Amino acid sequence: MNDIRAIVGEAACKSGPDAARYYEDPRGSFTGKDCVVVLPETTEQVSQIVRLCNSAGIAIIPYGGGTGVVAGQLSLDSDAAIILSLERMNRVRSVSPDDFVMVAEAGCVLENIHAEAERHDLMFPLSMASKGSCTIGGNLATNAGGIQVLRHGNARDLCVGIEAVLPSGDVLEELSPLRKNNTGYDLRHLLIGSEGTLGIITAASLTLKPLDPEAVTAFCAITSPADALRVLRALRTAIGNRMNGMELMSGFGVGLVCEHFPTLRNPFAGDHPWYLLIDAAGNPGVRDETEAALAECIEKGFIIDVVMAESEAQRSALWSLREHTPDANRKTGAFCSSDTAVPIGQIDAFVSGTHAAIAGVHEGLRTNSYGHIGDGNIHHNVFPPKGIPKADFLQAHPGIANGVRGAINEATLALGGSISAEHGIGRLKRKDLQEHASPSKMTVLRQIKQAIDPKNIMNPGALIDQSACAD
Amino acid sequence: MNDIRAIVGEAACKSGPDAARYYEDPRGSFTGKDCVVVLPETTEQVSQIVRLCNSAGIAIIPYGGGTGVVAGQLSLDSDAAIILSLERMNRVRSVSPDDFVMVAEAGCVLENIHAEAERHDLMFPLSMASKGSCTIGGNLATNAGGIQVLRHGNARDLCVGIEAVLPSGDVLEELSPLRKNNTGYDLRHLLIGSEGTLGIITAASLTLKPLDPEAVTAFCAITSPADALRVLRALRTAIGNRMNGMELMSGFGVGLVCEHFPTLRNPFAGDHPWYLLIDAAGNPGVRDETEAALAECIEKGFIIDVVMAESEAQRSALWSLREHTPDANRKTGAFCSSDTAVPIGQIDAFVSGTHAAIAGVHEGLRTNSYGHIGDGNIHHNVFPPKGIPKADFLQAHPGIANGVRGAINEATLALGGSISAEHGIGRLKRKDLQEHASPSKMTVLRQIKQAIDPKNIMNPGALIDQSACAD
Repeated sequence: MNDIRAIVGEAACKSGPDAARYYEDPRGSFTGKDCVVVLPETTEQVSQIVRLCNSAGIAIIPYGGGTGVVAGQLSLDSDAAIILSLERMNRVRSVSPDDFVMVAEAGCVLENIHAEAERHDLMFPLSMASKGSCTIGGNLATNAGGIQVLRHGNARDLCVGIEAVLPSGDVLEELSPLRKNNTGYDLRHLLIGSEGTLGIITAASLTLKPLDPEAVTAFCAITSPADALRVLRALRTAIGNRMNGMELMSGFGVGLVCEHFPTLRNPFAGDHPWYLLIDAAGNPGVRDETEAALAECIEKGFIIDVVMAESEAQRSALWSLREHTPDANRKTGAFCSSDTAVPIGQIDAFVSGTHAAIAGVHEGLRTNSYGHIGDGNIHHNVFPPKGIPKADFLQAHPGIANGVRGAINEATLALGGSISAEHGIGRLKRKDLQEHASPSKMTVLRQIKQAIDPKNIMNPGALIDQSACAD
Repeated sequence: MNDIRAIVGEAACKSGPDAARYYEDPRGSFTGKDCVVVLPETTEQVSQIVRLCNSAGIAIIPYGGGTGVVAGQLSLDSDAAIILSLERMNRVRSVSPDDFVMVAEAGCVLENIHAEAERHDLMFPLSMASKGSCTIGGNLATNAGGIQVLRHGNARDLCVGIEAVLPSGDVLEELSPLRKNNTGYDLRHLLIGSEGTLGIITAASLTLKPLDPEAVTAFCAITSPADALRVLRALRTAIGNRMNGMELMSGFGVGLVCEHFPTLRNPFAGDHPWYLLIDAAGNPGVRDETEAALAECIEKGFIIDVVMAESEAQRSALWSLREHTPDANRKTGAFCSSDTAVPIGQIDAFVSGTHAAIAGVHEGLRTNSYGHIGDGNIHHNVFPPKGIPKADFLQAHPGIANGVRGAINEATLALGGSISAEHGIGRLKRKDLQEHASPSKMTVLRQIKQAIDPKNIMNPGALIDQSACAD
């Protein structure tokens, strides 16, 4: 430990109460052990720390913005690991407008990357509710998704190169801005989404996009998820891949947001069972084209009513309803927050099937279903029956969170879905992955982990339980 | 061998003169050894063959359409390997318009996939000159690029899932159409671009896109690659990511095409030093927007003259000039065809720098430079001095092809480029990769290969020389 302090300096190591926030789970479902937190400032320092840990057999837990919800950044079992926070590596190293690439260090907060891109009249389209605190390193390590995947893809689709420190301490320098670069296995994509178990991403070459001259945001009242799918089809036919995203929100959920955040309000006079938040952008004219398509959807009965944002302030107010949903869920006492995805055509069956499965676990459970319907990725937040505080309920029904998660997983898999859409596996879903992935897949995951990190020092216990290798 | 015959049937094994085409290099630079060619019809048969080869230590060379130009599909040293051709696995298994996904077997010819997508009013945007004979399995195994990468990405960007047979014979079934699926390391991206050295891709879930209501094709006469970059910048500002591709063609090259294919003609009355072929598509109006941007480029002096395609026939005629370039190069006696990429801003320095480097290798060499300027990926085709036949020249100057390739590599790397942009490494560039990749990258490539294919049966000698592991 003293050797590590010597690398980064005394002030760049934290522990105990000073480091309390690093042990917290954003949903309050876990508490991490109070490991020493180390804050290197350069790739070279990261390399030295990793080399040292490899030689001494010390586990390393990479830490981005701390917004992960599957306990990938928390040590649940032991305080002997170090937490390696990239927060001081927060420089934008370069922007090349010709290449549409920004090279940013892992600790850059996503919202700051948005601002830097805009200074060059470009945009970085990865976005999500936690954009003010999540970091690009964490986004890439977990292959974050978010609200514009429909048009722009996940984090991995917006990264052309990475710099990473491997478990050996060696630095992999693959920051080239080139779109075409077929020189060996794609180590960038292997490290992206590996949740810090194969190395530490220290910087990335991010794909920028041209700014759209025109954007349009619409909030629609609808009757059912089946109608949401009808609207999705109509819009994709009408405006093609200019649709940024389409978010489904339940009437129950919008009510919770307005209840917990009284400055926010539902723009419709009355309540409706479901809502759709639609965002599109592109050439001048995309707004008219979208409005025409939505008018046709009203005519066909797919949409009850529409509110179009007429200003940036209105657009922002509509998105606030969506972005405050995770907080409203937390305040309401969600004890299970799912993140599964199904093929788009199965959305209706998925919502009704999972609701039935949740009801089957315990009578009276309430569910707020919302999320990225354009990606088949609907989150269910499950609350105790009305009037029962979360803590009391969980004490009276130990294991119910796992029971609900299991029921949602089963219903998802029955429809050909994925048990983790955008949040990753972490420590929360490691057993779920082990249970549901095919043996041939698990074998390859283990082979790769063993080959690159034979001492299992990189985020051990996240994603894969390598100690089970000997099984 | 008899065991393999028993799996696929006698008629599905070829050898000797019957199999001559499998030993041919499309550029005539190599001749493969006459290995037995095996043509399985199902994933299960592939699995059985691989299991058998693994146990017997028989090398397997996966074979797609045979259009690869880096000898990845040829056995150069030994006739003891089997060539496993996927050509009989050519079914489209399903199309899901809601998910914008087609599940196609590896042996499907790219052009047939285009046609199948269009039957569903959708498109599959991967495209290249060899589209009539290359297969999607080969496209994915090599992460093929082509002419629409600027807008739609490389092969890997157009694939959401794969099915593959691993070196153990186990089948990896990851054909889910989901856009969001964070369940472990991304084995799809690891296998894509691995050139058959980690497994055999047997099927893939391909990303379809909406058809564009309007398209525009323009052919521009320009003075220099520097002006091409100015046009690229102007268009990306004007029409953003609606530009499908931008191809640079040298005046020399267009002359060669018209000489060897007399039915094709240069649409301009006079000759010009360079040409740009520009393709964009999107909303109704994209044509007007593109024309306006090009008019402004003429006004600013970036473009000498423009011809716009006024019909599908004219569009096709313009593209024919580009698509016949590889054949014209071959007929002219190209002895070296480079495939490197540089950051976009370096294009001008790249063209002048590589031309100087080529001239430095041997006086009088002629070079046709053309390719995907929007991706920084310009191909140089190098011919003997005028009047000297290729065979005579190569006999008189043994090693000159390697000398020219080396000179282009050095000039590319000096500008921060990649020695293989879209064609991959194969056997042609294996030593180049070994020489120029960082030791930390080569170590990880070897670790992965060793972990997944410990007996080195999968396309041994392509991409990586695993026998050098002991070095």
